[in-house]
Amino acid sequence: MAIITLTTDFGEKDYFAGATRGAILSELPGVTIVDISHNVSPFNIPEAAYIIQNAYNNFPKGTIHIIGIDSELNPENKHIAVKLDGHYFVCANNGIMSMICSEIAPEDIVEINIHDKIRSSFTVLDVFVQVACHIARGGTLDVIGKKISEIKPIKGIKPYIKDDKTILGNIIYIDNYGNVVTNIKRNFFESIQKGRNFEITVRQYTFSKIYQKYSDIVNFDIPENKRNDEGRRLAVFNSGDFLEVAVYKSNSATTGSASSLLGLGIMDSVSVTFIPDPIKLDDVEYPQNIHRLSDFE
Amino acid sequence: MAIITLTTDFGEKDYFAGATRGAILSELPGVTIVDISHNVSPFNIPEAAYIIQNAYNNFPKGTIHIIGIDSELNPENKHIAVKLDGHYFVCANNGIMSMICSEIAPEDIVEINIHDKIRSSFTVLDVFVQVACHIARGGTLDVIGKKISEIKPIKGIKPYIKDDKTILGNIIYIDNYGNVVTNIKRNFFESIQKGRNFEITVRQYTFSKIYQKYSDIVNFDIPENKRNDEGRRLAVFNSGDFLEVAVYKSNSATTGSASSLLGLGIMDSVSVTFIPDPIKLDDVEYPQNIHRLSDFE
Amino acid sequence: MAIITLTTDFGEKDYFAGATRGAILSELPGVTIVDISHNVSPFNIPEAAYIIQNAYNNFPKGTIHIIGIDSELNPENKHIAVKLDGHYFVCANNGIMSMICSEIAPEDIVEINIHDKIRSSFTVLDVFVQVACHIARGGTLDVIGKKISEIKPIKGIKPYIKDDKTILGNIIYIDNYGNVVTNIKRNFFESIQKGRNFEITVRQYTFSKIYQKYSDIVNFDIPENKRNDEGRRLAVFNSGDFLEVAVYKSNSATTGSASSLLGLGIMDSVSVTFIPDPIKLDDVEYPQNIHRLSDFE
Repeated sequence: MAIITLTTDFGEKDYFAGATRGAILSELPGVTIVDISHNVSPFNIPEAAYIIQNAYNNFPKGTIHIIGIDSELNPENKHIAVKLDGHYFVCANNGIMSMICSEIAPEDIVEINIHDKIRSSFTVLDVFVQVACHIARGGTLDVIGKKISEIKPIKGIKPYIKDDKTILGNIIYIDNYGNVVTNIKRNFFESIQKGRNFEITVRQYTFSKIYQKYSDIVNFDIPENKRNDEGRRLAVFNSGDFLEVAVYKSNSATTGSASSLLGLGIMDSVSVTFIPDPIKLDDVEYPQNIHRLSDFE
Repeated sequence: MAIITLTTDFGEKDYFAGATRGAILSELPGVTIVDISHNVSPFNIPEAAYIIQNAYNNFPKGTIHIIGIDSELNPENKHIAVKLDGHYFVCANNGIMSMICSEIAPEDIVEINIHDKIRSSFTVLDVFVQVACHIARGGTLDVIGKKISEIKPIKGIKPYIKDDKTILGNIIYIDNYGNVVTNIKRNFFESIQKGRNFEITVRQYTFSKIYQKYSDIVNFDIPENKRNDEGRRLAVFNSGDFLEVAVYKSNSATTGSASSLLGLGIMDSVSVTFIPDPIKLDDVEYPQNIHRLSDFE
Repeated sequence: MAIITLTTDFGEKDYFAGATRGAILSELPGVTIVDISHNVSPFNIPEAAYIIQNAYNNFPKGTIHIIGIDSELNPENKHIAVKLDGHYFVCANNGIMSMICSEIAPEDIVEINIHDKIRSSFTVLDVFVQVACHIARGGTLDVIGKKISEIKPIKGIKPYIKDDKTILGNIIYIDNYGNVVTNIKRNFFESIQKGRNFEITVRQYTFSKIYQKYSDIVNFDIPENKRNDEGRRLAVFNSGDFLEVAVYKSNSATTGSASSLLGLGIMDSVSVTFIPDPIKLDDVEYPQNIHRLSDFE
């Protein structure tokens, strides 16, 4: 039996999430319902895109992901179902899928057109629940919508490259530990880096090293009682392979976090400047590389 | 296999909800447990009543709903099990069921009397879990309690009608988006309205229209970049059919919400004044309608 | 099929908990996953120890408990799997198990050594998920780790006894109702008390009685409208048998709670002083009890 996941901005208090679970179980007894998150900030599409992108592929192929963010149907906000990477996504065509789709091409996209068959006043969730259960029963997408070729893009998700020597990105997410996540992914970073040294700048803070995990910042050769690592800041590729500025063992309520200590918030800028190795003269081939010299000015 | 739902004020951090889930699974392996909410404000009975009323009937008939709010057994707080609308509710007789029961007559109510068979120190949850599992196994209510005919009422849930031209209600719930929900339901509203125009007043704000969904406030004929709808206030019947004052795409943390922007809180008053249509003289049938004229004074 | 529970400091917003659930379901379709808590304060080991200790034994024997707090693998933070009381625990060897193990001796402890077989970047959770699923499939601990005999202890969990007449403890947890939980358990308390009267002191507040449940503080002989019990403070043994200072029907947001009203926080001291009964002369057997007289000074 298929799995249906839920990612919404409903919060955990209201009846919305419970009612949705009930509607799914009424439609499809015995189905496995898994919450990914109900705590996306209200109407925050980039946050939802980041969460679903990092969660979805831990589930088995064939899982159906309902994303309930800003999903009220209106002339500018149509409903879609997307097949991608063997998974199904049911959501509004409001940009939420553009982060995932920028990495993996969708196999199929339909604009849902079953709204005339929906009676309830809880339309939005009913639509998504109906569609998800249809797919879970083995139904095809063409029955519940008409094929479309493109999804709505979202702005500000992709970092910029300047002169092949600078990446200009921004902060897209702040996690439970107050760590700030940028929109710069490891494979993108490395494709520009090409082995060069670099300096990452966020506000007045700079980092010239990216750690592979948080405790790599600790020197375990120093006795524990002589170390003072809690609260130290570092750059790290997080478990989703996004460049992140973190504070070791951060806790917003006590030691403080990257977000609170460094004063960093959503959409703040982050830049990575790559520094060429010192020129070895016999590597220089004139005139082809003359333009590279200008990089040093 | 039956479904057991949980609605409590335990919060999501403490061991209470986890322990309850464990106790149910120990008693009834393989049962489906669904959280409706664990974030009811502590001891807040009207909130819990609103949440359970709007969630329960999305579940299949036969579902058993445990409601753990202010449920410690004492001489004034007995435990009950209620069958209503094909669903079962297990809770304290503290008014929590009076909102649902005011709309649908219970089929059966028993006061639970199995407390002498309970050994654990986690009495309250043990009792509800035992009762819920008994029902889930097909057991009847008369085995676990003695029939009673009435449940304890709750105050301040129902709006008042004044002279057939004003509804006096109040705010009973504030949702995750900061939207404020009144105790005035659509069918009640319409039964008093009888087609008349109206003016809804909350604090200094008035509304003369009730929208069917949030984005109905948007004029999609105006180009998107020339509109400025986010943050606009509106009255709407929400998905539970309650009259609600909302702010379009509200977010308490950014744009603000109906609650924060309009300064509205739980138990604040809301009034609806119905305005008769201008009298068409040939509609007036004397003397029967003479009392209606007094409405204009 | 086994049950796998999750206790973490991931919070409910991020993708971490959802991704973990997905990884478990990918590994072991149909397994029952139960959340105990994802809201442990970041890196707070005593909180997690308290939660898991009070939740675990409500689950059936054979349940596997994943505890994801401060679990990044490093030279000082190894991963362990523990069999205890018929349950399995998978976590870091960071002290989290020492509260449970101080009461019940573990049957088996292994230090996990399968890390070379783990490929993912979400190492920590992958390790625990792999181990938990291995156990759920009936695998033995010796396959995934090497036997060790001791776990890392945690400080400040146990109360002290002074001169057999005073218990010096501290506050280890504050629950959803703002009630403050001490590290003094009922059986420990009673083993020192030996029937004597006592005075519990936290800050300037004293208690000479411990209630068995919250509403025992209410005198139900007085009519309800003449009572004023909400907000009264009391000492109680909570459902986990820990001594707790509570406020009747407390709500941090309205009436206030033990934590907010009494200004009590984590690690604050609590003392219990036992007061011998007034001496009955014919009970005194000289010279054996002469040292007891000094207690009165």
